[in-house]
Amino acid sequence: MKLLLLSTLSVAAVMASSLTQQAKDNGLLPIPESKSELLKLIDNSKNPITEKKVQLGKKLFFDPRLSKSGLISCNTCHNLADGGDDGVSAAVGHKWIANPHHLNSPTVYNAVFMGSQFWDGRDPDLEKQAQGPIQASPEMAATKEHVVATVTSMPEYIKEFKKAYGKNVDINFVKITDTIATYERTLVTPSRYDDFLNGCQSALSKAEKKGMQTFIDKGCATCHNGVALGGSMQGFALTAPYKYANLGDFKGDKNGLVKVPTLRNITQTAPYFHNGGIWDLKEAIVEMGRIQLGLKITNTEATEIESFLKALDGRKGHIMLPMLPASTATTPKPDLN
Amino acid sequence: MKLLLLSTLSVAAVMASSLTQQAKDNGLLPIPESKSELLKLIDNSKNPITEKKVQLGKKLFFDPRLSKSGLISCNTCHNLADGGDDGVSAAVGHKWIANPHHLNSPTVYNAVFMGSQFWDGRDPDLEKQAQGPIQASPEMAATKEHVVATVTSMPEYIKEFKKAYGKNVDINFVKITDTIATYERTLVTPSRYDDFLNGCQSALSKAEKKGMQTFIDKGCATCHNGVALGGSMQGFALTAPYKYANLGDFKGDKNGLVKVPTLRNITQTAPYFHNGGIWDLKEAIVEMGRIQLGLKITNTEATEIESFLKALDGRKGHIMLPMLPASTATTPKPDLN
Repeated sequence: MKLLLLSTLSVAAVMASSLTQQAKDNGLLPIPESKSELLKLIDNSKNPITEKKVQLGKKLFFDPRLSKSGLISCNTCHNLADGGDDGVSAAVGHKWIANPHHLNSPTVYNAVFMGSQFWDGRDPDLEKQAQGPIQASPEMAATKEHVVATVTSMPEYIKEFKKAYGKNVDINFVKITDTIATYERTLVTPSRYDDFLNGCQSALSKAEKKGMQTFIDKGCATCHNGVALGGSMQGFALTAPYKYANLGDFKGDKNGLVKVPTLRNITQTAPYFHNGGIWDLKEAIVEMGRIQLGLKITNTEATEIESFLKALDGRKGHIMLPMLPASTATTPKPDLN
Repeated sequence: MKLLLLSTLSVAAVMASSLTQQAKDNGLLPIPESKSELLKLIDNSKNPITEKKVQLGKKLFFDPRLSKSGLISCNTCHNLADGGDDGVSAAVGHKWIANPHHLNSPTVYNAVFMGSQFWDGRDPDLEKQAQGPIQASPEMAATKEHVVATVTSMPEYIKEFKKAYGKNVDINFVKITDTIATYERTLVTPSRYDDFLNGCQSALSKAEKKGMQTFIDKGCATCHNGVALGGSMQGFALTAPYKYANLGDFKGDKNGLVKVPTLRNITQTAPYFHNGGIWDLKEAIVEMGRIQLGLKITNTEATEIESFLKALDGRKGHIMLPMLPASTATTPKPDLN
């Protein structure tokens, strides 16, 4: 009996190991367990991560006064208490204006693992990305001058910039957005999927492993691969027979392609697709099979894949709400118009 | 020399003690140091504070899905990262509509110490107050049904309600808002002012003590008293020669009176007054002297009083951002209209 049990376990181990190998062969990568390995992945040599920059960037990320209205922070649309996004189809910003191209706010969690930023992949990294929404008129609607004037109106911010970058720091718009990006680079959420690929065979249930197998077998990993399970521009052509409104006027990149979104924390980031067209995860799986893979994913298979995707729910860690410095006489007043 | 020093110290002690006594005589009360004393002040016998309710209430406080749009949480206008308010003159809510009576969002920090809630004092406590903004059309614009359907669509919330109230809990609108209020009751911020009144003579600087003396001498404590340094309806008549726009159509309570706001964390809650008419604290002090006390507060006196008011900046404690449960298929969809 004891022998039989051992033998069964061995078979399970071989099967699991084979799944790990298949994942590897299909480009599915885990968030490394080792902190130094992780740092290599998330750091930016031109804007290196330091603890002081992270803490300052976190304050700026949560500060609504960077916006024209004084009401919208990065966290408004990339809500870290939720899935790192806003839960609506198209982002809503300044003056309650929805994104004119009907684009859905992507999650900021694990965005650092993406090959490029924005749905059309137009920006190479989070540093460049952070400059966009702050200035976009239907988002935070601020000018660079407003942002710099706001930050430099508060002695506590000036002090923290000096601590982070040295006494002679020039607190300009790029320095501010770079600092926000540094914080965003740390927003990674290891999951049971990572534990599994990092060698803990029991981290995934039998159903989740089965789902992972189906995910690979059906070809989902063709696009959803790498550490982010997404993030490249190889996916989604806008010319595909996409059945969901609202398509808006979004044109994708120069080849008409839309960036492959990450699947991490997917249970918390509905609605799905660049236009937030689908709310149900299983429906999204079936639709992707139809459009992207040209195959019919059965209800059973979709359930299996969904089961795997749920195992991508990450550990967000403990996020302490930063306490922001008080406005001063020179802090620009909110402008709601 | 030693004798002289001792003697000087004694005089200082007597002076300080006298200031403490004057504070007491003028109804200025500290947040008690003793946790049991504090609990007596902030608890509600009809809705007792428990740790499970506090943690659940915190999630609900931060959950934007309680609003019609899915974008506005209690924390949007009562931002705990900031002064517990929104930093704009009149609150802005659903569809970017400003408060129709041009009323400024009061801070939620220390609101528990107020004798009543809202600028017209119409609600007796935070439990009742919490029902208002969720339903108000220019705020969160939700129906009771929306709130209940949202909360009960997520198994994690149901589980936490059962843990907090027992298995047979009826998760209705009142139960939900009561739970939010329980969390709000814990948002108290002891300051150096409290340390001083609780017996630590060195907690306030000489300038701050001087400011406190001026605050009392000028009569500010006539209205700004109690633990909140405010919170009663004895203040501010709308018929006063109030020079700042926008007055809106706010009528105050049945006697045309406006509630006295708390002065705690006042450096973080600009703009001031019920209509957010004044941004500068010293200007607000002078204006209050003119309208309410019928006297001219000099620039020196205003500087002194401001120095005291800054000592009311409280310790907010460490607020961990709650991680919200994921929406499910039955969670009501956001409605931006």
